[in-house]
Amino acid sequence: MGKPVAHKLLETHLVDGQMEPGAEIALRMDQALLQDATGTLVMLTLEALELERAATEVAVQYVDHNLLQEDSRNPEDHLFLESAARRFGLWFSPPGNGVSHPLHMARFGVPGKSLIGSDSHTPASGALGMLAFGAGGVDVAMAIAGEPYTITMPEIWGVHLTGSLPEGVSAKDIILEMLRRHGVSGGLKRIIEYTGPGLDNLTAMDRHVIANMGTELGATTTVFPSDETVKAFMVAHGREDEWVELLPDEEPDYDLEEEIDLSGLEPLIAKPSSPENVVPVRELASEPIYQAYIGSSANPGYRDFAVAARIVAGERIPPGVSLDINPTSRVVLSELSRNGHLVNLLAAGARLHQAGCNGCIGMGQAPATGRISLRTVPRNFPGRSGTVEDAVYLCSPETAAASALAGRITDPRTLGARAARTGIEDGLMAEPGMFAAPPPPEDAAQVELVKGSNIASLPSFSALPDELELPVLLVAPDDISTDEIMPAGAEVLPFRSNIPRIARFVFRDVDPDYPERADAVFHEGGHAVVGGENYGQGSSREHAALAPRSLGLRAVIARSFARIHRQNLINYGVLPLTLPDGQEAPSEGQILRFAGLRNAVTDGTTVRASIKDGPDIELTLEATRRERDMLLKGGVINRYRDQRAA
Amino acid sequence: MGKPVAHKLLETHLVDGQMEPGAEIALRMDQALLQDATGTLVMLTLEALELERAATEVAVQYVDHNLLQEDSRNPEDHLFLESAARRFGLWFSPPGNGVSHPLHMARFGVPGKSLIGSDSHTPASGALGMLAFGAGGVDVAMAIAGEPYTITMPEIWGVHLTGSLPEGVSAKDIILEMLRRHGVSGGLKRIIEYTGPGLDNLTAMDRHVIANMGTELGATTTVFPSDETVKAFMVAHGREDEWVELLPDEEPDYDLEEEIDLSGLEPLIAKPSSPENVVPVRELASEPIYQAYIGSSANPGYRDFAVAARIVAGERIPPGVSLDINPTSRVVLSELSRNGHLVNLLAAGARLHQAGCNGCIGMGQAPATGRISLRTVPRNFPGRSGTVEDAVYLCSPETAAASALAGRITDPRTLGARAARTGIEDGLMAEPGMFAAPPPPEDAAQVELVKGSNIASLPSFSALPDELELPVLLVAPDDISTDEIMPAGAEVLPFRSNIPRIARFVFRDVDPDYPERADAVFHEGGHAVVGGENYGQGSSREHAALAPRSLGLRAVIARSFARIHRQNLINYGVLPLTLPDGQEAPSEGQILRFAGLRNAVTDGTTVRASIKDGPDIELTLEATRRERDMLLKGGVINRYRDQRAA
Repeated sequence: MGKPVAHKLLETHLVDGQMEPGAEIALRMDQALLQDATGTLVMLTLEALELERAATEVAVQYVDHNLLQEDSRNPEDHLFLESAARRFGLWFSPPGNGVSHPLHMARFGVPGKSLIGSDSHTPASGALGMLAFGAGGVDVAMAIAGEPYTITMPEIWGVHLTGSLPEGVSAKDIILEMLRRHGVSGGLKRIIEYTGPGLDNLTAMDRHVIANMGTELGATTTVFPSDETVKAFMVAHGREDEWVELLPDEEPDYDLEEEIDLSGLEPLIAKPSSPENVVPVRELASEPIYQAYIGSSANPGYRDFAVAARIVAGERIPPGVSLDINPTSRVVLSELSRNGHLVNLLAAGARLHQAGCNGCIGMGQAPATGRISLRTVPRNFPGRSGTVEDAVYLCSPETAAASALAGRITDPRTLGARAARTGIEDGLMAEPGMFAAPPPPEDAAQVELVKGSNIASLPSFSALPDELELPVLLVAPDDISTDEIMPAGAEVLPFRSNIPRIARFVFRDVDPDYPERADAVFHEGGHAVVGGENYGQGSSREHAALAPRSLGLRAVIARSFARIHRQNLINYGVLPLTLPDGQEAPSEGQILRFAGLRNAVTDGTTVRASIKDGPDIELTLEATRRERDMLLKGGVINRYRDQRAA
Repeated sequence: MGKPVAHKLLETHLVDGQMEPGAEIALRMDQALLQDATGTLVMLTLEALELERAATEVAVQYVDHNLLQEDSRNPEDHLFLESAARRFGLWFSPPGNGVSHPLHMARFGVPGKSLIGSDSHTPASGALGMLAFGAGGVDVAMAIAGEPYTITMPEIWGVHLTGSLPEGVSAKDIILEMLRRHGVSGGLKRIIEYTGPGLDNLTAMDRHVIANMGTELGATTTVFPSDETVKAFMVAHGREDEWVELLPDEEPDYDLEEEIDLSGLEPLIAKPSSPENVVPVRELASEPIYQAYIGSSANPGYRDFAVAARIVAGERIPPGVSLDINPTSRVVLSELSRNGHLVNLLAAGARLHQAGCNGCIGMGQAPATGRISLRTVPRNFPGRSGTVEDAVYLCSPETAAASALAGRITDPRTLGARAARTGIEDGLMAEPGMFAAPPPPEDAAQVELVKGSNIASLPSFSALPDELELPVLLVAPDDISTDEIMPAGAEVLPFRSNIPRIARFVFRDVDPDYPERADAVFHEGGHAVVGGENYGQGSSREHAALAPRSLGLRAVIARSFARIHRQNLINYGVLPLTLPDGQEAPSEGQILRFAGLRNAVTDGTTVRASIKDGPDIELTLEATRRERDMLLKGGVINRYRDQRAA
């Protein structure tokens, strides 16, 4: 049996470990990607590490998440990032350039290379045949500092595509079909690799849609082969010389296999408030809509906007419907302008927003309470839109535009040729002059970091004590997302470089008194939180670990953990303890007592806790030696300092 | 001597009073304009008036100020305004259409008509030969209900323009020259009327720039003649049939006269933080800039963007400079796209924002602390940009774009032909299909107001009782401002349509327990507040009267009152009582007893109060007959209802 693309990518980047599912493997990272919402913390970490120069081949700081600039804090974050990019030798993509993932793919992506990014949708570059991981900021900082990135060797899941998409159906419907079949945890501990003759009908940007939203399945990453389609994309962006072919061997040996006949797909839509609530669009047809939203890294292609423009051309959307256009990049916007699509969108009544992530991460365009918002974005977790009781549906640009035109949820196939993809080519995403190159090292060393008053040093955390007494302050449900643990949105995001301040928002929409209760026991040694399955799913934001840690969180006890969040907890010295099947979960208010903790964490798989007036419980700590070392030392930064001192 | 245009406009709208400077005159209002930031309160007032249908010929609700939609409150305000527009018979301009003043001028402006707007830049439509006033929300609501608007008869100030503007100099430099000569109070109690042969070289949109910023001189309004230039503008917008000529008589009789030779002007710039700090651009040349901002109602013309695009075409702005493009309207944006200017702006590195006011009123694009921001907006008051310690300079689009290109403050004349206005025509501002027409009255009567959870009907206030017993809850110092009475800021402003909620912030920074103490005596008939000199100075915000009234404020006793706040108190039925010299002020906690109050207010200048365990005090009430009637009835809304019932 031959090797899958994913196997080859892992093999060529393997630094340590055995490539057997479940084993820990360390991988060399060739490239790094930062966005602004997570980047400030990465840069503060690089500063704490006293890094001289990024050790990756390419590292890029994008500014795409928070562009609102309501007061001085946001622009001062941008100045800090720009100065830090120069200081540490990263490329810089200023506000207005657009969304990181498609920009990175177009300007810096190279088949066969590895990429780590402080954004959960970093796997989008898997569309080019890259090995791309979303990770917490600390992992990204360490990778920039030259450390390998450690993951658990995943299974490789071959998804065989046959046939070709019917008119009115597009790449978004393929990934929605995957979510319909497998749900938001269907990809956990797996790399999804797409293969088969169906690929021939998917452009590089179509593949980006699918790779991007592999994250919604919980996948470690998604990969596509680097074939003639990828070559065409690289050629179009003037980077033919960086293209290499990367195909699976004959009869590749997948751990699991799956088949999708593209010809059999129909337009799909994910209902509120999870990407897995997928049904055919026709089942919801005629529901009145309030908003249709085109854009984000989940539908970033020129085609995605052009097809929407063609659907509404010459018509006018009805009063009371907001058609929000969020261009991917300044180049996509230019191309839409040049080819007349922009004029068609505007004449139809669309609102054009600046290039960037914007409403996808709750920075603008929030819908009214309970009103239906159709979005081409990757996620519809509750409140992510900025509106607490929102009603966000995920769909393709075709479905969003057709529904905007009708004022009701509409299957785009009912529009016939108007919704056809035929005749719309992929346009350009980026051009080289958009990015500021890092200065040479001798100049970079002179650069001073520009720190506004809202940028605070990282808090330092103590090593793990041998005994702990932790009250359970909160019991969270299954699948609680990092959006619920650490909300985003305009009120919160400005404090992402100010940990004491942002910590006041932890669990805001779940349990707003949590920070106060945490304060009350902070000096008694901290507290614990209890979760269910898949604790910390969704966005990779490490503030969801760092901010509660700064409030005294010492342990999370759950049935299972989302991969990135579990790593983030360990990075900041929070124990991720698994509750075995059959073991009842502790309740809110119970006090957990741990003794002999340092020995248990050093080499035990079982951590025992006693509960006052109850039986002892046995918790599982699955962790590598390196992770145990971090937990003992109080996190990755302490460990790095200790190593350098030694 | 002949009549100025302004005289003719006043004369044809005069309902009551003598046209002598200083006399009170009442004017018929033909049109009304609302924007969203002030419109919600106007609409709530119309609801309280139980208005059936707008009595003006044309009334329009624009949504242009707050478009950020960070959470559900902002979009729910928009839904409320849209429903209220349908209910009361106003046109509606949805978010994304653009800025009210140029849109109104292009779509609804009619030479010879009067206009009142709940925005201080409403005089912009004076560019067409309209009589246009900015006013408080209650005045606008009353005008929509058919009441005349009362002002003090201003002087008419003829400004004679000769010559023509040199290349690189544009309309903005004319109004900056007026500010350089006369400062921000130079236009107080005056109407500015432009005349002379220099007008022939100024398009309708050039005149808009000048009329708009007459507000910065403190002028009552600004008027231009309606001549062939205005006709051309109306023709271009398909409204030739609504054009009428309106010229001054031969040798018009101005109260004051002034001359500006346009040929002698050079590029000007207003330094922080007042529009009157005007110096030649060349004096500041080479200061490094952080931001250049094109847009707003002060430079809304197609030309203003096109000239900036021509300046940067084929070049790229340097790293670290943000060139922010804020299109006036969806039509201006379309025209810029169609003619290739948009592509040139984007390729040069500009950030394109949605059509609207945006950063001009601090809703986005805030600069970093202390960094130089060049803006084509009308105002640079401290903090208006959203950044507390900002450094905003006002200038023309030519100066802003030339400076963006150089990264330093630059006199656009140094660019030669690149900064020339030659060859750029005025484009369109609006097209009819952008606006939702009000439904016919029979349908409008069925419309339910859509009130999100943050929109509350205005509280209703009772008529003045004959006896009152009012504890003094607070003694405020001299010169207390409306900012101290009713704070603004991000925490408070979202509640501007929710009086019960915003009332909890009254006197927050002076005496945070005041609302609670007011609650305690609310059902015993309310309370009084004591002030010093100049009570209620500063911003004209009506909430500073309305919100404390909703807490039971019945009387303010002070040495003197700021003019606008005194009127606002009367509008909401609060007695503004003056403490005569030598009369000791009551202290906090004392209880004032009033008897025979209705008789005293009906025609007395003295109102007597007794204080328990103290001597009686005599207070003065200076008020017109109309104001006394309002006080007796509990405010302007009750008075309107009573009149209609009678």
